[in-house]
Amino acid sequence: MIHRLIDKIRQTQAPIVVGLDPMLKFIPSHLQKIAFERCGRNLEGAAEAVWLYNKGIIDAVYDLIPAVKPQIAMYEQFGIPGLTVFHKTVEYCKQKGLVVIGDIKRGDIGSTSEAYSVGHLGKVRIGDQDFYGFDEDFVTVNPYLGSDGVKPFLKVCQEEKKGIFVLVKTSNPSSGEFQDRLVDGRPLYEIVGEKVAQWGEECMEESYSYVGAVVGATYPEQGKILRKIMPKSFILVPGYGAQGGKGSDLVHFFNEDGLGAIVNSSRGIIAAYQQEKYARFGEEGYAEASRAAVLDMKEDIAQALSARLG
Amino acid sequence: MIHRLIDKIRQTQAPIVVGLDPMLKFIPSHLQKIAFERCGRNLEGAAEAVWLYNKGIIDAVYDLIPAVKPQIAMYEQFGIPGLTVFHKTVEYCKQKGLVVIGDIKRGDIGSTSEAYSVGHLGKVRIGDQDFYGFDEDFVTVNPYLGSDGVKPFLKVCQEEKKGIFVLVKTSNPSSGEFQDRLVDGRPLYEIVGEKVAQWGEECMEESYSYVGAVVGATYPEQGKILRKIMPKSFILVPGYGAQGGKGSDLVHFFNEDGLGAIVNSSRGIIAAYQQEKYARFGEEGYAEASRAAVLDMKEDIAQALSARLG
Repeated sequence: MIHRLIDKIRQTQAPIVVGLDPMLKFIPSHLQKIAFERCGRNLEGAAEAVWLYNKGIIDAVYDLIPAVKPQIAMYEQFGIPGLTVFHKTVEYCKQKGLVVIGDIKRGDIGSTSEAYSVGHLGKVRIGDQDFYGFDEDFVTVNPYLGSDGVKPFLKVCQEEKKGIFVLVKTSNPSSGEFQDRLVDGRPLYEIVGEKVAQWGEECMEESYSYVGAVVGATYPEQGKILRKIMPKSFILVPGYGAQGGKGSDLVHFFNEDGLGAIVNSSRGIIAAYQQEKYARFGEEGYAEASRAAVLDMKEDIAQALSARLG
Repeated sequence: MIHRLIDKIRQTQAPIVVGLDPMLKFIPSHLQKIAFERCGRNLEGAAEAVWLYNKGIIDAVYDLIPAVKPQIAMYEQFGIPGLTVFHKTVEYCKQKGLVVIGDIKRGDIGSTSEAYSVGHLGKVRIGDQDFYGFDEDFVTVNPYLGSDGVKPFLKVCQEEKKGIFVLVKTSNPSSGEFQDRLVDGRPLYEIVGEKVAQWGEECMEESYSYVGAVVGATYPEQGKILRKIMPKSFILVPGYGAQGGKGSDLVHFFNEDGLGAIVNSSRGIIAAYQQEKYARFGEEGYAEASRAAVLDMKEDIAQALSARLG
């Protein structure tokens, strides 16, 4: 799957992932109206509004980008109807040819991590048949429980040719509270990064491993170091745009081959129409505003990368 | 809610939580047969089997225990039908008067943690009404992202009078890989434990805070130290039974008042009938075997605690 992600990045010339992190306050009122009329002003109605909103955005941008990253929490908040739309969104994106990174940040002890990996990447055996639960292509994984929490994901990835991104240095302001604590004089995130590189050694598809890492755009200096520690790992970079990361911050997350990183933007794309810059599209044109924002993001990153090479 | 948990512990004389972590291999064949005939040999059928199995156990043990801890991964592996049964199990346990600890180990950056806490402990606003998603009483939280990943949970706990248990030192063999790394000469789990105590200071209900911690029964020495670092926090102790923790290992997790810890057993209770010791109940008597195992566990812990006081 990492190979497929690389192919798609090359084909679209866009190391970009659109974060499908819907919140009701982003969803245009005409879509909320349709959804509430159809399903009621309740969890089902909210989930339907999310679905209509997502579909509009996906249809408008799918040809420009290699991948999407639905954040499951934004669906889980609407209970079962929300998670049903998460699943529907995953399926629809895959039909559109997109690589789907489930941003689930799961992680538990061995047998429980096995259940998560089966449910999100693999299949569960019932009688003599196998069934897929959510069937994303990649998921994000929390490493706090150590190797035996991560390895069940690797096993399923090997079987299914899928991949994971392990949280190493997250984009939020207090990520340093534990991740930056010095262990033998070096921050914990470097130790986690070394483990990612090590787990990846046996999980190679040509020149990259399918054990990637999450490193926030808001920490470019740390990104530079982690890039060296994990040369064969793709870095999923959140925090661009709304969280403050800029194109010029991103260059160090990439390798010399121009690959090795994929930059996420969520509300900067999906709620672009609420920004002054894209206000001309209006609420009704929210999906076209998202398309314009993707094109601008692509340009911003391409410029930063070419300035580095130039 | 921590106050209610304490009342229930006193009333049942059992600082015990039963982990509802169903796996198909635990579910007696007569229940699988009914479920598959009813719903098909598919995700729906597997989820129905889980439901029938859970209901039998809950009905057999609810009067003996204060709380249950459904592990969401075991439901999530069956996709939407599985999560629907997770929700149904939460609701049923609450009807039976049990305190429900959702073992979800979520944790993310601020706005995303907010969505998880709303979905699992609080309510989401849709139009001018509020709706509950999963509505557990407590959830487990992963601290790797730091304070701004945890604080949204605290805010919802304050509003809803609920609580959390933060992962501090987990029960699995490789928990030490990151959690034991020395920071200024002290293991990381102590630093996390200090944070738990600090978060708890503003979250008190009488003598205990509703910010608890998870510390594995498999690490009694660490439990002793963490007990001192977090004197006002309840400790949720997994790893008893199947994972190797014994009654005598547990005493240090408790305070002098005989409170402060709640010990989880999952497969040791719910799959008791598969053990030699309870084989007399047979597959059909799986729920009665679970009841016998709860009574034995209660006795084991009571003996260990009275030996310590004596």
